[in-house]
Amino acid sequence: MNMKSEVDFIGVVKSSGEFSRVVIFPRFCVGLPGLDNFSHIVILYWIHLRDNETERNTLQVVPRRHPGAPQVGVFASRSPSRPNPIGLCVVELAKIEECTLFVKGLDAFEGSPIIDIKPYIPRADSVPEARVPEWTSRGPPT
Amino acid sequence: MNMKSEVDFIGVVKSSGEFSRVVIFPRFCVGLPGLDNFSHIVILYWIHLRDNETERNTLQVVPRRHPGAPQVGVFASRSPSRPNPIGLCVVELAKIEECTLFVKGLDAFEGSPIIDIKPYIPRADSVPEARVPEWTSRGPPT
Repeated sequence: MNMKSEVDFIGVVKSSGEFSRVVIFPRFCVGLPGLDNFSHIVILYWIHLRDNETERNTLQVVPRRHPGAPQVGVFASRSPSRPNPIGLCVVELAKIEECTLFVKGLDAFEGSPIIDIKPYIPRADSVPEARVPEWTSRGPPT
Repeated sequence: MNMKSEVDFIGVVKSSGEFSRVVIFPRFCVGLPGLDNFSHIVILYWIHLRDNETERNTLQVVPRRHPGAPQVGVFASRSPSRPNPIGLCVVELAKIEECTLFVKGLDAFEGSPIIDIKPYIPRADSVPEARVPEWTSRGPPT
């Protein structure tokens, strides 16, 4: 079994804020038709500012944006420091203009590469009653 | 801007079915504490059987498991053929024994490498009312 592979960047976060602009590179733009039939999408992005040996070797964290959170394993957190610096964010898709997506609620920084876009499908992705530890209810959603 | 990076495999799907066993490699096992406080997790896996030039250059698909689905861009589908062969699955976490996760509902094949595990947090990840096209309601969830 191989122990690694390559991830290609398919786009980039052009601006961020309450509304963000995500530009898909021309070569991958033909992968977008039909996406506008979904109100929400999952964006997987590359946390490029943490793509270094130190951050990728971080295996335990104290989620500081969540007051009172204990030290936990990175896989029990949404910390941007993790073995593969992949960010996952469910966002509202406001509109698509050519190769640019306008989305609401993206937590990625400007300049973050995009590695995948998936349609959000409630019957697969929505679990309103999922149980979480109490510290996740304080501070921002992730 | 770099156009690619490296993804490290942190574990592997050891068996699949209604319940699946996911083994995290020893080196990454210290990233698991606290995960058992979540009832659901997001598993990102590497669709290794599609990690080749042809499948990674697939940009439009007809989602055949969904009767009546039109041809759409891959980013408007959950097709395993896509530029980065990343699978995303929300699963119920039944239990953790040392470095092995027992999960319910994983759609990955046995032998698929794992690239990330994230806790499922409803206030970030659950959008029960998200709008989807009608074809997604036929066939399996993804």
